Amino acid sequence: MSSPRAPLTVYGMSTSGNCYKVRLLLEQLGTRYAWQEIDSANGQTRTADYLAKNPNGKVPMVERDDGRVLVESNAILHWLAEGTPFLPADAWQRAQALSWMFFEQYSHEPYVAVARFIRGWTPLDSPRRADLPRLRERGDAALAVMAQHLDQHAWFTGPDYGIADIALYAYTHCAADGGFDLGRWPSLQDWLRRVQATAGFVPMVQAGEDVRARLAAAEPA
Amino acid sequence: MSSPRAPLTVYGMSTSGNCYKVRLLLEQLGTRYAWQEIDSANGQTRTADYLAKNPNGKVPMVERDDGRVLVESNAILHWLAEGTPFLPADAWQRAQALSWMFFEQYSHEPYVAVARFIRGWTPLDSPRRADLPRLRERGDAALAVMAQHLDQHAWFTGPDYGIADIALYAYTHCAADGGFDLGRWPSLQDWLRRVQATAGFVPMVQAGEDVRARLAAAEPA
Ligand SMILES: N[C@@H](CCC(=O)N[C@@H](CS)C(=O)NCC(=O)O)C(=O)O
Ligand SMILES: N[C@@H](CCC(=O)N[C@@H](CS)C(=O)NCC(=O)O)C(=O)O
Repeated sequence: MSSPRAPLTVYGMSTSGNCYKVRLLLEQLGTRYAWQEIDSANGQTRTADYLAKNPNGKVPMVERDDGRVLVESNAILHWLAEGTPFLPADAWQRAQALSWMFFEQYSHEPYVAVARFIRGWTPLDSPRRADLPRLRERGDAALAVMAQHLDQHAWFTGPDYGIADIALYAYTHCAADGGFDLGRWPSLQDWLRRVQATAGFVPMVQAGEDVRARLAAAEPA
Repeated sequence: MSSPRAPLTVYGMSTSGNCYKVRLLLEQLGTRYAWQEIDSANGQTRTADYLAKNPNGKVPMVERDDGRVLVESNAILHWLAEGTPFLPADAWQRAQALSWMFFEQYSHEPYVAVARFIRGWTPLDSPRRADLPRLRERGDAALAVMAQHLDQHAWFTGPDYGIADIALYAYTHCAADGGFDLGRWPSLQDWLRRVQATAGFVPMVQAGEDVRARLAAAEPA
């Protein structure tokens, strides 16, 4: 759902997992919103207008109709989910959900998402590709921690699906783009399928042909 | 306050800012807890016992008397602060506090804290020191974003001091250890002094002499 007069505008880049998190939750909540596409690769997060709203120059950002903004994908998820089934009512369980969301930003995204970015969005001869083996090692460690949790639990958020699952799904489902082999963790693959089967699920927007060509040509990592 | 029969045990390394966050809040709340010193530099986060509790192998971790554990410093802060003045009652303000805490883990700690670690805890000829200029640049950007906020606001958590201030104070107050020049941001220095003047404030434990000698000998960054 997207409408120019919606009470909430999301500034985001469609092929970014951090932005997809916000779109997926909004769709599953059935909340009306407008989507403002921002091309961060082409400097649109560095314009004076954008930096006036978000001095850290990143997407996603949500803006309310009175102009107030909120940044950081996982803080946006938490705000949108308060009082809904996507955030557990129990305080300890909420803390565990937040714990997984900090894990995502600190131990997962900087490796799993950055490897995808380097393989798909930098030239095939970019010096940044030398980082891939280290990113692969750290990303594998994060995926192994997730798989171990899934050996005992169905979801990351709590007894039910919710925002910690959304936060972790965003870059785990496309980890192969970063050169990761999800076939090593069957419990992780089962969880990805469970997420895809939740009510109102929408997939991430596919990257352009240029990106897909680079991903196909890239070294395994 | 520390007692062997406390209802809460904190596993932490005293010179780590992420662990200090938890200690500072517990002291300011006046909550009873036991502190279990963990030397992560000497593999104590990689023992089978520790990994059974926290598969991600990091400190801090809190353990309740029934054996349940919670990891991730900022998730621990949020859990401890629920229902106290350290977390705002207003949902939008709580979201802004969380936003700063995700900013801390994603855009601040990986640069400001890691530069400190490399300068103080790796040999003077470590190849990791080649990363310092990049860490310095990214860390400066994060400190500038903080300073810009402080030009308009007294605190990061909301109208009052709270957990977002604690999360950001942990590595900002010792940013000089990472080669950062806080003299560039007077509003940041004023805020550090306001934090230090809050009720029940306790300073971080000083690093050992070997670390201080390396910090003194290190390049400016
Ligand atoms: N911690 C942030 C990370 C956001 C982020 O890194 N966004 C990227 C796109 S995925 C971006 O805006 N990059 C532009 C830039 O850093 O200049 C969040 O979770 O929202
Ligand atoms: N995101 C974690 C980071 C914790 C962290 O990196 N802890 C360090 C000490 S400051 C550690 O345990 N390092 C040991 C290791 O990574 O093996 C948090 O905020 O709690």
